[in-house]
Amino acid sequence: MNNIALLGFGTVGKGVFELLKDRRDVSITRVLDLPTKKEELGSLYSTKEEILQDENISTIIECMGGDTLAYEIIKEGLTRGKNVITSNKETVSLHFEEYLSLAQEHHCCFRFEASVGGGIPLLDPAYQISCFDQVERIEGILNGTTNFILSKMQKENLSFQESLKLAQEKGFAERDPSADLQGLDMVRKGVILSSLCYHKEIHNEDVIHFGIEHIDLDLIHDIQKRGKVLRFLMLSSYQEKLSLQVIPALLSPSHPLSQIQEEYNGVTLYCKNNSLVTLSGKGAGRYPTASAILQDLNHILEGAAPFRREKVSLLKNEVDMSGDYYVYDGKESKILSSPSFNTLSSYPFVAKIL
Amino acid sequence: MNNIALLGFGTVGKGVFELLKDRRDVSITRVLDLPTKKEELGSLYSTKEEILQDENISTIIECMGGDTLAYEIIKEGLTRGKNVITSNKETVSLHFEEYLSLAQEHHCCFRFEASVGGGIPLLDPAYQISCFDQVERIEGILNGTTNFILSKMQKENLSFQESLKLAQEKGFAERDPSADLQGLDMVRKGVILSSLCYHKEIHNEDVIHFGIEHIDLDLIHDIQKRGKVLRFLMLSSYQEKLSLQVIPALLSPSHPLSQIQEEYNGVTLYCKNNSLVTLSGKGAGRYPTASAILQDLNHILEGAAPFRREKVSLLKNEVDMSGDYYVYDGKESKILSSPSFNTLSSYPFVAKIL
Repeated sequence: MNNIALLGFGTVGKGVFELLKDRRDVSITRVLDLPTKKEELGSLYSTKEEILQDENISTIIECMGGDTLAYEIIKEGLTRGKNVITSNKETVSLHFEEYLSLAQEHHCCFRFEASVGGGIPLLDPAYQISCFDQVERIEGILNGTTNFILSKMQKENLSFQESLKLAQEKGFAERDPSADLQGLDMVRKGVILSSLCYHKEIHNEDVIHFGIEHIDLDLIHDIQKRGKVLRFLMLSSYQEKLSLQVIPALLSPSHPLSQIQEEYNGVTLYCKNNSLVTLSGKGAGRYPTASAILQDLNHILEGAAPFRREKVSLLKNEVDMSGDYYVYDGKESKILSSPSFNTLSSYPFVAKIL
Repeated sequence: MNNIALLGFGTVGKGVFELLKDRRDVSITRVLDLPTKKEELGSLYSTKEEILQDENISTIIECMGGDTLAYEIIKEGLTRGKNVITSNKETVSLHFEEYLSLAQEHHCCFRFEASVGGGIPLLDPAYQISCFDQVERIEGILNGTTNFILSKMQKENLSFQESLKLAQEKGFAERDPSADLQGLDMVRKGVILSSLCYHKEIHNEDVIHFGIEHIDLDLIHDIQKRGKVLRFLMLSSYQEKLSLQVIPALLSPSHPLSQIQEEYNGVTLYCKNNSLVTLSGKGAGRYPTASAILQDLNHILEGAAPFRREKVSLLKNEVDMSGDYYVYDGKESKILSSPSFNTLSSYPFVAKIL
């Protein structure tokens, strides 16, 4: 029997609990959450110390979010040789290298499939491909909230505010959606996915990002008149140099990502030998996220090898700004060719034309 | 060092050879092919017996195609405890259960990622999902040749013969393309993918299939007038009963598979917890197929667990014929609701409306 400690009994944690409750090979024996959940959790309710010191716990599943407490427990858990699975993109994007090194040193697994792309089988297949092929470029819709807003505005002609409100009512968008709208959420996910595929260390703060806070229906109509579809993307590439940016993009309707609708996420990997591989599915939500966590658990139970880091080097992110950009000053739009970053930054809305 | 024997030095075999030639952890030490390649292969050229009896060969990569010789070597190889990787959908769809049992009995791996969907990371992620979620339904474009023909007819208004000729010139279509056009190739791939996802034994001969041999531009224009996109699909489902058919389908332009163009393949898994997961990529060709073989090799080198068969039972395939079908008699089209199989079989062209 594999005993598991669950950190966080919210939307995702409850999903994991439910999906594991009838399994005979694993058992959740401890749960960490706020004291307000003490009654609901009964004998499962445990402190951080109880979980770390319990030698029967072989795996910790972390779905609390946030960095401070998560970092403390993940680090200590790995040091004690416990496997760790997390859905927490913040802590993964900040401490990716450290967690992987600790897991390697202490012969346990650190896995984080649920931190990027929700239920899409993404990190594991992408990493596998990167081990024997060369991933040269990645384009991804990695944020369900903003894709939902863009879909509603373009397909149903809803205003930005109406679309955002609907996303909040459906539970996709946070009360304070600024991390999603500014692209910070996608920066973290792009860093995780790109680090894994390129075998390179990348830091959140090196990533250029443009947001979608300033879009309105006039802008949407202008883009539609151009025969394009607006999507909010993470774009990265690594051939001679590494580039990573989060930026709205105008796609032709035949582009594989132009069809990713509502809260779905989608990623296209451009591989040297394998051409384009596109993976899509629900990017968030209780069951898709819980499903990704179970995928990691399955890999651990089967004894899969941990992610290896064949070559790690520190590269300051250099972004390729070549190509055409669509800019909108609130009244008019125009196209700029290979602008400087500073020029682009002076516009309230910027989109790359793909 | 892991010594590998390669069976078949054609399009795919040469791709595998090339992608492995600089690897330091594995080495192809023997190659089986026709005597005409003896000179080209030099000291690598080996007989079946030499390969099977060489105790230093830990893994056999089979990309010859056909069943008779492949079956003989795969069976004997697994019995001797050698791992086997194959891209041969014919032999996998015929002897799936036997190969998996032999691998289990002799503690080696049998993997066949390249047999379905070319370079798409498909069988492994789909199997992983099926282990902790329930795959309820699968829709797949699993044949590059026919998808290429349908794309060219719909996008470029080429005739059936022109499209087929182009596919042959590009090396996608066989000289005798009837197995592709009748759907037999997709039957085999559908059987492999569905068996794996539903954990059920399915036989090629139980699968109903309708082909695309009788399509022409009049038919294509009629479908376009209806606002639909024609794709040739494998459809399977397993809830209360198992159903599997290969049939052309009319898709709305927003359907995820309507965007799969030319020689690309795509699969949508409808999962109980994880909703829709769509995976797409190049379905055939030297490097995509070789890439899938390397993906299997990577899994074996990492010590991944073999596919497990939790529940195996024999179910005669019962196909659900409910819903609307588009039929075309060569002159006129009409829609039939929940027709019998015999009624449908009397038309030269049949498509399910999705």
